[in-house]
Amino acid sequence: MEEIRESYETILELCAKIKPVEKSLYEKAQHKVDLKTKPPGSLGKIEELAVRLSGIQGDLEPRLDTKKLFVFAGDHGVVAEGVSAFPAEVTSQMVENFLAGGAAINVFCRQYGIEMAVIDMGVNHDFAARDGLIDMKVARGTANFAKEPAMTRDQAIAAMVRGAEVFLASNREKNCDIVGLGEMGIGNTTTATAVLCAASGKSAQELTGRGTGIDDAALARKQAAIEKALALHRPEPRDGLELLRLVGGFELGGICGMALAAASTGCAVVLDGIISTTAGLLAYCICPAISDYLIAGHQSVERGQLAALKIMGLKPVIDLDFRLGEGTGAAVTMNLAELSCKMMREMASFDEAGVCGEKCN
Amino acid sequence: MEEIRESYETILELCAKIKPVEKSLYEKAQHKVDLKTKPPGSLGKIEELAVRLSGIQGDLEPRLDTKKLFVFAGDHGVVAEGVSAFPAEVTSQMVENFLAGGAAINVFCRQYGIEMAVIDMGVNHDFAARDGLIDMKVARGTANFAKEPAMTRDQAIAAMVRGAEVFLASNREKNCDIVGLGEMGIGNTTTATAVLCAASGKSAQELTGRGTGIDDAALARKQAAIEKALALHRPEPRDGLELLRLVGGFELGGICGMALAAASTGCAVVLDGIISTTAGLLAYCICPAISDYLIAGHQSVERGQLAALKIMGLKPVIDLDFRLGEGTGAAVTMNLAELSCKMMREMASFDEAGVCGEKCN
Repeated sequence: MEEIRESYETILELCAKIKPVEKSLYEKAQHKVDLKTKPPGSLGKIEELAVRLSGIQGDLEPRLDTKKLFVFAGDHGVVAEGVSAFPAEVTSQMVENFLAGGAAINVFCRQYGIEMAVIDMGVNHDFAARDGLIDMKVARGTANFAKEPAMTRDQAIAAMVRGAEVFLASNREKNCDIVGLGEMGIGNTTTATAVLCAASGKSAQELTGRGTGIDDAALARKQAAIEKALALHRPEPRDGLELLRLVGGFELGGICGMALAAASTGCAVVLDGIISTTAGLLAYCICPAISDYLIAGHQSVERGQLAALKIMGLKPVIDLDFRLGEGTGAAVTMNLAELSCKMMREMASFDEAGVCGEKCN
Repeated sequence: MEEIRESYETILELCAKIKPVEKSLYEKAQHKVDLKTKPPGSLGKIEELAVRLSGIQGDLEPRLDTKKLFVFAGDHGVVAEGVSAFPAEVTSQMVENFLAGGAAINVFCRQYGIEMAVIDMGVNHDFAARDGLIDMKVARGTANFAKEPAMTRDQAIAAMVRGAEVFLASNREKNCDIVGLGEMGIGNTTTATAVLCAASGKSAQELTGRGTGIDDAALARKQAAIEKALALHRPEPRDGLELLRLVGGFELGGICGMALAAASTGCAVVLDGIISTTAGLLAYCICPAISDYLIAGHQSVERGQLAALKIMGLKPVIDLDFRLGEGTGAAVTMNLAELSCKMMREMASFDEAGVCGEKCN
């Protein structure tokens, strides 16, 4: 792997390479969609995806030949506050499950022809080296942000740069057209919600959800831990690096860095649930131009996610009542994105098919 | 093709073969889903699909090896009332488009490995015989139901029986695990809305939508045509055959018959937009037990559709702002149904994966 400097300049260099989409492409793509043999607008979100992907690829015949999805894993010191229904070792156990092919995201990626890999960003476990596992461990879990910053500034930068590095290295081997960003980490809805409260100015009361399904007592502890952290650290609302350092997680940093790297190469980025979307928001705070490349995969049951999407001006494609993460919502949306590209390339226009449009007679 | 009598007894014989799903299977399937390595309920609608398909197939390892979708085409006399944005000849032109592979539903079926065929139930055009086109024409379009019954009783029965016949003949060649029911017919949202108003007791004002995208003047004509028909015919709210005869369409009859035939063989039936769902409602009126086999593919932009789903107790799987029909929403849902089956078969349980459940520690 090519050496990349673990400095914030590396991140800023990626940001400089992110080109805003030429807006006239959206109009041209919409015009092409409107000439297809169907009433205008009648394919709803598939049409929106087609238009966005045409813009991203600068091509009215967009293609998603190579689809990749990365699952970023990390542990969280804040689990010491009793915020999760599952014990912390489930993070490493689930990584093993991903590697054995038995998790939901494995099933989804197989169904949709998506290449998948797992990145250890900071799991509190030593994994044996294996195909499909990428070791980018920054540390064995974050510190408990209810008591101290989640990580050091160097660690936050390392997490971002390493996420970027994985994408760029993988891209050199095989160019990626669309990438899905998933995660696994017991405690990480607490982390994401803390970031979202800070970024949106909303309270823990408003944004905290039940994550994997916690009871009322754990929900109260989760809210209390977030409130404590916000009072302790008082993070700047839109400073991506500081949010990550103070109340973030290593997988959030990795996702943020990969999103920036992917967008810098012109690759579409599909966000997943609350954690992935929060990491997308960190990237957006650092480089707002990334929003042209971000696709909100699904609407999470976690209410905090919508706060993040609102800031970025994104609307989720699907709503299937998912609250699993791993990239499951992103995977379904990547398939719909592919469908939208085929619609652009394969569907006949009124003229081609000899079908009367509204103004035929 | 084996001879089937075109009598209502044929339909009643199919109804008698529809076995309600053994409800204990749902519990067993849900239990299996809950042991998978994910928080309970976190795959939302995919879990619901998995449970329903396990029930339908009587097997906790459901499979959807063969997926078929039929597009039922028919013309409607009520277009004489000026209810559509498109001229009536678009029905036959779109049939040609389906046969040439250039319509949205062709793209969707190719993407999802769904075998597709078009059934001429009553298009006002003579088609040359071709692969992929099944001639079941009852007549060259219905009568204008704003002035007289849409069809005769014999025609209504013929439409149902022919729809059933196509499924049973196809099934003898290759057994079908899940069937999607799509349609094409200029004027058929007017027809479906008339049926829905009669069945639900709601007014044309409440239920009439803009179909392919009509303007205010056409919307007023559409509502007026429906009101005129309801005042003229006063159909019994839940008499499926009479609703079809008085204000229905040949493609609605065909879909209704095929749904009954499919359910009688234990095949899952995926409804699509407002027309397909209305035809499902006709089948439900004739045989309420069919609801165990019906899956509401997508939520249509057409508001009448929800009235039909409510009567049947069904909730749509997806909401992608579709209002095209053809089976496009059904096709996407058939793919999600397949995903749900793979989740059941391929995803590891907590025990199998060695992952701690909530009560591990």
